[in-house]
Amino acid sequence: MRPQVVIVGGGFAGLNAARALRGADVEITVVDKRNFHLFQPLLYQVAMAALNPSDIAYPIRSVFKRQDNVTRVLLGEVTEIDLDGRNIQVADEEIAYDFLIVATGATHSYFGREEWEPLAPGLKTVEDALAMRARVLRAFERAEARPEESDKWLTFVVVGAGPTGVELAGALIEIAVHAMGEEFDRVDPAKARVVLVEGADRVLPPYPRSLSTSAQRQLEELGVEVVTGTVVSSIDGDGVTLESGRRIVAGTVLWAAGVRASPLGRMLGDVDRSGRALVEPDLSVAGHPEVFVAGDLAAVEGVPGVAPAAMQMGRHAARVIRTGERRPFHYRDKGSLATIGRARAVADIKGFRYGGFAAWLSWLGIHIFYLIGFRNRFFVLAGWAWHYLTFRRGARIITGVPKT
Amino acid sequence: MRPQVVIVGGGFAGLNAARALRGADVEITVVDKRNFHLFQPLLYQVAMAALNPSDIAYPIRSVFKRQDNVTRVLLGEVTEIDLDGRNIQVADEEIAYDFLIVATGATHSYFGREEWEPLAPGLKTVEDALAMRARVLRAFERAEARPEESDKWLTFVVVGAGPTGVELAGALIEIAVHAMGEEFDRVDPAKARVVLVEGADRVLPPYPRSLSTSAQRQLEELGVEVVTGTVVSSIDGDGVTLESGRRIVAGTVLWAAGVRASPLGRMLGDVDRSGRALVEPDLSVAGHPEVFVAGDLAAVEGVPGVAPAAMQMGRHAARVIRTGERRPFHYRDKGSLATIGRARAVADIKGFRYGGFAAWLSWLGIHIFYLIGFRNRFFVLAGWAWHYLTFRRGARIITGVPKT
Repeated sequence: MRPQVVIVGGGFAGLNAARALRGADVEITVVDKRNFHLFQPLLYQVAMAALNPSDIAYPIRSVFKRQDNVTRVLLGEVTEIDLDGRNIQVADEEIAYDFLIVATGATHSYFGREEWEPLAPGLKTVEDALAMRARVLRAFERAEARPEESDKWLTFVVVGAGPTGVELAGALIEIAVHAMGEEFDRVDPAKARVVLVEGADRVLPPYPRSLSTSAQRQLEELGVEVVTGTVVSSIDGDGVTLESGRRIVAGTVLWAAGVRASPLGRMLGDVDRSGRALVEPDLSVAGHPEVFVAGDLAAVEGVPGVAPAAMQMGRHAARVIRTGERRPFHYRDKGSLATIGRARAVADIKGFRYGGFAAWLSWLGIHIFYLIGFRNRFFVLAGWAWHYLTFRRGARIITGVPKT
Repeated sequence: MRPQVVIVGGGFAGLNAARALRGADVEITVVDKRNFHLFQPLLYQVAMAALNPSDIAYPIRSVFKRQDNVTRVLLGEVTEIDLDGRNIQVADEEIAYDFLIVATGATHSYFGREEWEPLAPGLKTVEDALAMRARVLRAFERAEARPEESDKWLTFVVVGAGPTGVELAGALIEIAVHAMGEEFDRVDPAKARVVLVEGADRVLPPYPRSLSTSAQRQLEELGVEVVTGTVVSSIDGDGVTLESGRRIVAGTVLWAAGVRASPLGRMLGDVDRSGRALVEPDLSVAGHPEVFVAGDLAAVEGVPGVAPAAMQMGRHAARVIRTGERRPFHYRDKGSLATIGRARAVADIKGFRYGGFAAWLSWLGIHIFYLIGFRNRFFVLAGWAWHYLTFRRGARIITGVPKT
């Protein structure tokens, strides 16, 4: 029997690991608790009613339809990893492996304040995005139904000014000003306030300082209030209080801060503060050279939690399995990009830093290029073109809880 | 103050009533518990993973953006109708009216067997469609995970062979044979069984008999097993038992039978067996000439529960309000259409009965024409073209319960 490679997680790391093993003399099983790969960098567009979930999701089975050595795609959750016995437990089935790649990623973290979650939802899954969309759209409806409370309902606070927070803040202003503008009778959505709160001294803290400056200027031009150097000390149903003592009354608080790794990290040995698995230079687990960790779940010094890094790690693990050579993983920084809104972005590509429309075009091109599958590229492009030309939101519907 | 017209329900009847009042010297308030109009006839395409919810949903506010006498669009649920006081209660607000049009429609009914609902989900809301989609897609995944149970998981029973049941049965076979075909390793989805159960002696019972015969032949050509003249006597987690005593082991049972009108019907006076409000010939409520019922909520002899009838009723109520002339409502039957699958349908248009590809093209044209809003028409057309050319399903993702 050919060596059994089991890959847990169908995100950027897992998918790229499996693809890099194409043609190798192994049998690959891909396990994920969802049936689709999610193009996470555009999830905020689903939350902001510009895209549909299926525009940025692609069935994992379809990805591997023509890769012969992926002999099994399994929908299920891993409940146990037996490192010594070399098998994993998925529902009531035990799956043996010769090589294991764990790439189950990370989600947002409330820094121990889990009670904030219902008050300030985060953005990691399709369900999160739909819930966030419903909450934002409903805030405008509440302002209309109760004009006396419109100051509250037209104020949105975004906590955390990493790429996701910056994207959300920019998109919120655009929805308020352009998408909702003429349709309300008793309130003016264009008067909405968006406040972006960041604990560090600047937005996009992991990016070069000149990009942060450019991003903040572009956000402020759009009308976003940027508050840096202070963190949120409490959240309640009527808004947030900052550590600085400032109170912001807001009907909607969105969470875009913190990272907490998947619980599978702890099954692999030592983890860092965020729960990410500590790994050897070649991404394997100490004492278990047949087990690799890739993507956001791996704690590797100096590697950011972005899609290109996850893809590189997945391919690296595959290469070690394929060649047997235990080379250390090196992250090749292809640059940083963050979009701020329609035709606004910042870019730092190989040291060349720029902002505005040119950066936005780079962002657009790269994201469309990386979207998997023709349908998705086409529809995302068509949806954007439409959105760009008309300022409208195609997916402006409030949906709730399907009974499954 | 101009006369206040309150329209409850933003479906086909309510929307057409409001539009028919364009330019009239009234002030219109539209109340709906959802923020969007839903193009119900294509909801089964969402359930069958071919379309996205927002392809067939359109914000009610956007519909009336340019109609000046729609002075208010309110998102909320009507909890009380005070016919004598001429006002309705929406959340904590009382809204007075001079004219009221109630058009809150109907949902499916389990004929008193509400315990069947979790076992055999119906299809009325976007959430229903997403839940049905998840259930169908998950059935194939279960068959793959447990090949020993694949007979059960690859059997689908559709209860009720009205237009929705026929559409679901046809689409299920297509998903199994074409969309899933090559992607599973341990089971062959093309071996899926779809059983369509109907209590009447033929499919599409309200349609002319020749259409029923054509529809049944086309369904059987696709591979659907059609069982007529018997009803379901019990449903459990492993399948259904028919009144005839026959047992069908099935992992998925979908419900497409029965009609139960919105509970608002009972607030308006006498109702029929399905809870539909009894109305005067001009669609007004007995003793309250200022209150009208339109669409599926109105019990009018000889008028089917289809979109064109609802649109006509909405326009009729508007005309009575506008002109003051109490003419009786007459349903103009524009014909019957039901689609059975890719390039298959039956049509009866002004007595001209036909089936197959020509009928399908009629169906396609009419549905695209009636879809509200350019974006929707374009995307639905593009989605279909793609689906038609490739046999793939664009929205094949299993999503669950968003936390709202």
